Amino acid sequence: MSGNLKGVWAAALTPMRDDLGADLDVMVAHHRWLLDGGCDGVAVLGTTGEANSFSVVERRAVIDAVAAAGLPLDRVMIGTGCCAAPDTVELTRAALAIGCANVLMLPPFYYKVGDDGLFAAYDQVIQAVADDRLKVIIYDFPKMTGMEITTALVERLHAAYPQTVVGIKDSSGNWDDMRAVCEAVPGFATFAGTEQYLLPTLRAGGAGCISATANVTAALCQQVYAAHLAGDAAQADTAQDRATAVRLMLQQYAAVPSLKEIMAEHTGRAGWRHLRPPLLALDAAQAAALRDDMVRLGFSLAAAA
Amino acid sequence: MSGNLKGVWAAALTPMRDDLGADLDVMVAHHRWLLDGGCDGVAVLGTTGEANSFSVVERRAVIDAVAAAGLPLDRVMIGTGCCAAPDTVELTRAALAIGCANVLMLPPFYYKVGDDGLFAAYDQVIQAVADDRLKVIIYDFPKMTGMEITTALVERLHAAYPQTVVGIKDSSGNWDDMRAVCEAVPGFATFAGTEQYLLPTLRAGGAGCISATANVTAALCQQVYAAHLAGDAAQADTAQDRATAVRLMLQQYAAVPSLKEIMAEHTGRAGWRHLRPPLLALDAAQAAALRDDMVRLGFSLAAAA
Repeated sequence: MSGNLKGVWAAALTPMRDDLGADLDVMVAHHRWLLDGGCDGVAVLGTTGEANSFSVVERRAVIDAVAAAGLPLDRVMIGTGCCAAPDTVELTRAALAIGCANVLMLPPFYYKVGDDGLFAAYDQVIQAVADDRLKVIIYDFPKMTGMEITTALVERLHAAYPQTVVGIKDSSGNWDDMRAVCEAVPGFATFAGTEQYLLPTLRAGGAGCISATANVTAALCQQVYAAHLAGDAAQADTAQDRATAVRLMLQQYAAVPSLKEIMAEHTGRAGWRHLRPPLLALDAAQAAALRDDMVRLGFSLAAAA
Repeated sequence: MSGNLKGVWAAALTPMRDDLGADLDVMVAHHRWLLDGGCDGVAVLGTTGEANSFSVVERRAVIDAVAAAGLPLDRVMIGTGCCAAPDTVELTRAALAIGCANVLMLPPFYYKVGDDGLFAAYDQVIQAVADDRLKVIIYDFPKMTGMEITTALVERLHAAYPQTVVGIKDSSGNWDDMRAVCEAVPGFATFAGTEQYLLPTLRAGGAGCISATANVTAALCQQVYAAHLAGDAAQADTAQDRATAVRLMLQQYAAVPSLKEIMAEHTGRAGWRHLRPPLLALDAAQAAALRDDMVRLGFSLAAAA
């Protein structure tokens, strides 16, 4: 598996100022807190980071802030996949320019096409970027894109670019799909899109997970990964059961709003609740229900950290 | 109904150079050919125009080319809806800056949300643009966006911005939805997204159609509209039957590739076949089947024009 592309990764939230610009200082502090609190890496500018609600210029400012903060770039991946290939190329080059080789790349997600069209889309971007350092993690999120990245397409892309197309974040929620990729492409960095399948993915030879909820569950997830690495299967199973229970509770709520609500509660910084439309903050009743559910499960950031 | 927002509109194709940049000269010539050949208006940078495969900078060049060509801007609408609000605002301002008030606005289409989130998204853009000239035609294309613009949302937006939110392009393919909007918001410029429902839309009090296939069927569509305006119901029905037969044949093929194939055949300009990935040109067998189907229906651009 490629370098550090393994373990527990958070699809990091993007905190915002009152004017809904990215709050870059709070953002990189959040990245550091995640890296210090159980995350092997952070995926910046993914779905959870509301990347698609930011312009290319704004996303480049986020990339530059990551560089300026001196974050360990082998523990960072940058989301760069846009609908328009010129945008994807520009952002991928920007990630490489700061020394971050790992990019999490959505397919162009407006037009609905099959394997041939998606292959052509990835192919043209990789050809245009033309940089041997590039490591592409394919981003499969059918609920958002309306398309599936098939195992056959993953095999085809990896065969065409074995040194470049090195992994996948599978946010399908479908374990059979994740297992199929683990089995079809040995050595591929297959990340489950949810910590619910962290241990099954590791046991199937995959890399780990890249998860939205890991913004708040990183410590729980790391207990799973550490027990697995230590060869303690019973302890890994116990930790996975705990992580799964918390994840299943959290995913009853709108993903980004609920995670920002938890961060606002934890830090006392109300601005954490800012979201860009079309996403909206939890209302008071939803926030109260979330707090109750957390108490019921005995889950808090203070306890987890 | 607002000004010229009625009749037969084509969602115009974007011809490309060999390097897949927009061929702006061929493009504006195509717009003129449509306006002279049966179109009451052209919608530039919509789904059929592959807008989402072009960067904001590239789309601004398209907008500027429309202005430079001196096209009649009351017969033009510009697609401006992007995932990121700053992009939507920038393109909407660019359309207004050239004197084109009509914008066809997709909702932000990555995150899947309900009416409240979509209302907030449209609201923030209209507030940010802050221009009384603006006329928004809501763009409802559930197959591409994964979300539906409900009739309730249309009513809410129109009530909040009665002078600004003035129409909809309904590409749901669902006649019951189109009729519901015609009935719920009298005077609203409801455009069917297919000429299959042109006459039913007109009879329900709607505005007309904005259609991909009108790139090649404009003359047939105009026969429907003209007969309707003349009060000749029998002739309108006959023309609609003919337009429907051609449309149903055409929509068996991938929309943009097949229309570009027809334009390539008609003009002898092979470059018309260029598409940006993820869209791919028809293969030889598909192109042959399309030609056969056109012959079978006695449909050709030469005959239609």
